[in-house]
Amino acid sequence: MSEEPPKEQSKSALKKAEKAAKMAADKAAKAAKQAALPVVGGKKAEEIMGITVSKAENFPAWYQEVVLKSEMVEYYQEISGFFVLRPLSMHIWSTIRKWFQQHIEEMGVEESSFPIFLSAKSLEKEKDHVEGFAPELAWVTKAGDKDLEVPVAIRPTSEAVMYPYYSKWIRSHRDLPLRLNQWNSVVRWEAKQTTPFLRTREFLWQEGHTAHLTEELAGEEALQILELYAGVYEQLLAVPVVRGRKTENEKFAGGYYTTTVEGYIPSNGRGIQGATSHCLGQNFSKMFDITVEDPANKGSHLHVWQNSWGLSTRVIGVMVMVHGDDKGLVLPPRIAKIQAIFIPIGINKNTTPEAKKKHEDTIEDIRATLKKAGVRTDADWREGYTIGWKFNDWELKGVPLRIEFGFKDAEKEVISFARRDTGEKGTIPISEVGTKVPELLETIQNDMYTKAEAAFREHRIQITKWEEVLPALDNKNVVLIPFCLDGKCEDRIKALTTREDNQPDVPENQKAPAMGMKSLCIPFEQPEGVVAGETECLNPECERKAQKWVMFGRSY
Amino acid sequence: MSEEPPKEQSKSALKKAEKAAKMAADKAAKAAKQAALPVVGGKKAEEIMGITVSKAENFPAWYQEVVLKSEMVEYYQEISGFFVLRPLSMHIWSTIRKWFQQHIEEMGVEESSFPIFLSAKSLEKEKDHVEGFAPELAWVTKAGDKDLEVPVAIRPTSEAVMYPYYSKWIRSHRDLPLRLNQWNSVVRWEAKQTTPFLRTREFLWQEGHTAHLTEELAGEEALQILELYAGVYEQLLAVPVVRGRKTENEKFAGGYYTTTVEGYIPSNGRGIQGATSHCLGQNFSKMFDITVEDPANKGSHLHVWQNSWGLSTRVIGVMVMVHGDDKGLVLPPRIAKIQAIFIPIGINKNTTPEAKKKHEDTIEDIRATLKKAGVRTDADWREGYTIGWKFNDWELKGVPLRIEFGFKDAEKEVISFARRDTGEKGTIPISEVGTKVPELLETIQNDMYTKAEAAFREHRIQITKWEEVLPALDNKNVVLIPFCLDGKCEDRIKALTTREDNQPDVPENQKAPAMGMKSLCIPFEQPEGVVAGETECLNPECERKAQKWVMFGRSY
Repeated sequence: MSEEPPKEQSKSALKKAEKAAKMAADKAAKAAKQAALPVVGGKKAEEIMGITVSKAENFPAWYQEVVLKSEMVEYYQEISGFFVLRPLSMHIWSTIRKWFQQHIEEMGVEESSFPIFLSAKSLEKEKDHVEGFAPELAWVTKAGDKDLEVPVAIRPTSEAVMYPYYSKWIRSHRDLPLRLNQWNSVVRWEAKQTTPFLRTREFLWQEGHTAHLTEELAGEEALQILELYAGVYEQLLAVPVVRGRKTENEKFAGGYYTTTVEGYIPSNGRGIQGATSHCLGQNFSKMFDITVEDPANKGSHLHVWQNSWGLSTRVIGVMVMVHGDDKGLVLPPRIAKIQAIFIPIGINKNTTPEAKKKHEDTIEDIRATLKKAGVRTDADWREGYTIGWKFNDWELKGVPLRIEFGFKDAEKEVISFARRDTGEKGTIPISEVGTKVPELLETIQNDMYTKAEAAFREHRIQITKWEEVLPALDNKNVVLIPFCLDGKCEDRIKALTTREDNQPDVPENQKAPAMGMKSLCIPFEQPEGVVAGETECLNPECERKAQKWVMFGRSY
Repeated sequence: MSEEPPKEQSKSALKKAEKAAKMAADKAAKAAKQAALPVVGGKKAEEIMGITVSKAENFPAWYQEVVLKSEMVEYYQEISGFFVLRPLSMHIWSTIRKWFQQHIEEMGVEESSFPIFLSAKSLEKEKDHVEGFAPELAWVTKAGDKDLEVPVAIRPTSEAVMYPYYSKWIRSHRDLPLRLNQWNSVVRWEAKQTTPFLRTREFLWQEGHTAHLTEELAGEEALQILELYAGVYEQLLAVPVVRGRKTENEKFAGGYYTTTVEGYIPSNGRGIQGATSHCLGQNFSKMFDITVEDPANKGSHLHVWQNSWGLSTRVIGVMVMVHGDDKGLVLPPRIAKIQAIFIPIGINKNTTPEAKKKHEDTIEDIRATLKKAGVRTDADWREGYTIGWKFNDWELKGVPLRIEFGFKDAEKEVISFARRDTGEKGTIPISEVGTKVPELLETIQNDMYTKAEAAFREHRIQITKWEEVLPALDNKNVVLIPFCLDGKCEDRIKALTTREDNQPDVPENQKAPAMGMKSLCIPFEQPEGVVAGETECLNPECERKAQKWVMFGRSY
């Protein structure tokens, strides 16, 4: 399966941003280590620890800072292009894994684990497939101090690992459907600049591989899975996606057709592939000899219809890009490890031990009530930090709800809250936290989705005049255009929308991106206005008729 | 962490067994494929599909056949030493994963994911550690068609991957304990003969890595984890284990001390390491510079105390070896994917469609009741198979409970059952299945444990006379002996118990194993009878005094 990574981006800008983020983090770490304590309160520490780049001004640098400083990831210094996923991000991935696993189990998909290595022989069975992956394969050539007789590659995806066994195991139509999934990591040695979550040389994912008797059955499943992928984005990550089909140019190497969910990053107006569910057709079954006797025509054999589908940790990066702000991460409650953080207020040197103890007990009682209601909380009892520092720290980490609790709150028998997404503040009677806090978290989840959905909708615009395309892209839109679906025409559209001059008269930070647009998907939901075979293809050089509205954009 | 694999075994016997198992399976597959249907009923097919080797007569061959024919694993033909884990075994691993994950989450252990690769530089920081793993490292030297500037190794375990970050992240005692776990696969390119689950070049495991302020805190955690490992064996897999500590000779390379749970395989009387929880002491924290300010002595720094602990898919192999019989797998109900299999009886050509439909509906109703009661069931509606073939097939796959349901059962409003573990048969009124079947499954689980526990207890014998050692081993026992704990003495005991002559006068299949015994663990539960510094060490050549009862045995 292919994870489509960003094909073009300003490399020098990214490298600079990455370097700046690393330097800032190292500086902070050094300062902290020198202080022997983990950064004491005060302005200077706040400056060092907070996000130093504005999302609007330098989006790539902002992203690098957020994922690093929020403690989602750590750069792997030893080998470039690899990242450590820390508990904050692994909680998100585990939540997604549980949700998705439960749904595919209900569909009858079974869990399996195939070896990490691939022989060159298996890989070479499908020509387009091997061509797609060969440049990124990591080859093991030695074990201990001995050279291997035959080098083996680490899987970039497992079609060629698994399908020889599908050929062995599938003996009759009664063995169909065969549906296996595995959760693992794959290695693709990208030559391009890597970015945490979005493009990394190793990533976690699930890969499902299924075999069916007919094209129709395979097609149904491909869409069921696509709907689950949409669910991961929309229901868990509060990120809207457009469901559709890839054009021939953008489909999976060796597959029949690819369905996809496509996201949108408002900050730079780029599209981003969310996850793909491929119908492989009979291409692989022919290469790997996966056949059954045709139940409708005894004696003759048919090749099975196959699907493969994958969702990777890329989803976390998309979520960060869509929701984050200048204070750091903003996490949707459903995937946040800590949904509500308690900040005790007003405890100082003059507080009596009894008063302190009582305050602590009250907070722990409220937390126990919330735990029963299914709310994940923590309380920040750290000493030596200002309240302001704590606020910043939890905002940086994206915790959806901050609950402040001081002696005045205790007197009034309320908690004071602040929403991470909107900053909105309010109070809730302690007697009602068990119902009101879960409700509030659901409200936050829904509001985050609604906001992101509106942004995507407003920036997904139908265009029927070629000259409006480039201005629309520059205004951070993706576009829906009447398109003939021809591959060469698509290449030409990309070339026509690529800026070739260096915009010499425009200041560096105001230059429009040079990147041309490519097709993101053929949305399943087609607006009116394109009559197949009648409407013109939007490419002014193209003489073919349009077949569909197709979503194009600058993209990752 | 080390997974102690079998150090010695009859290679030629194993190779023969493996070959025989493969040939039998291939023959069956070929026959099935030729028949175009998945093996129709009848004697011949039963012969091909069943287990052809007796557990008592040729244990290694029996094991290979069982794991292959029950569809737990598939040999990876492309690269030797690797195996495919199929749904039957992955269900067991997932069950263990959920159980263990829940328990460590409650302890505050967090999930993380570190890169798969290791730089030579990090690895070399701890001398004993690198020496222990170097011969088995798989080296990536090429990406695409380009040589890497610096080759990278695939992790055999992640101490050297993770600890540079522990050094970065742990800044103060307030960052302690730091407890991270990851579920992944590791690669150890074994030169020795591999065996499914027990010794494979890649295996799935969890590896926990934690840092603590004091030796005491680290020690407490190491034992908490060990108790969870014992729980995996005893509560889920119905396999008894002995908890103890490894001798210096057998501890983890580079660690301080190793705690372990040790199992026992009745068929050959060998001990087998179950899982290990290591206290690494301060060795790694010194090498990787992981320090905090001493909270009791401001200004001075101390190195943190570390643990690492791992449990691998090896557990599945131990379970198979302990419980399986000549009909195939015997699965404990708690880890069985299907706990009860329904075999409809009496439906034939003369059955009217109405009668058949009614029978089906009744079975589905009972299954629905059982599902509500938390019982995992399936029904075997396959046509073209004899009842006998179906019985054999589900026995081979180890399903704990077979439920036969014919028209006579329907009339009497009962189900007829047969236990996989004992063969015991009986009936249960349909009205009571929701309570009686779960009870019966729990009974099976407990009976399986009790039986295995008795076998281990009977074959773990205290010995105080050297001349009784070898006969005890030959009678398939492990032994508890008074031992001085000296490493050289341990080496000598192994040598003294190794048969050097080829037993020329004994027929091949009656020869006693040549393998010497090694120490399995120093059990935490010490019987009376050894007075440290007074009792003699059992090795007749040793002049030291015994310190402990130590469990020795031939082992994997």
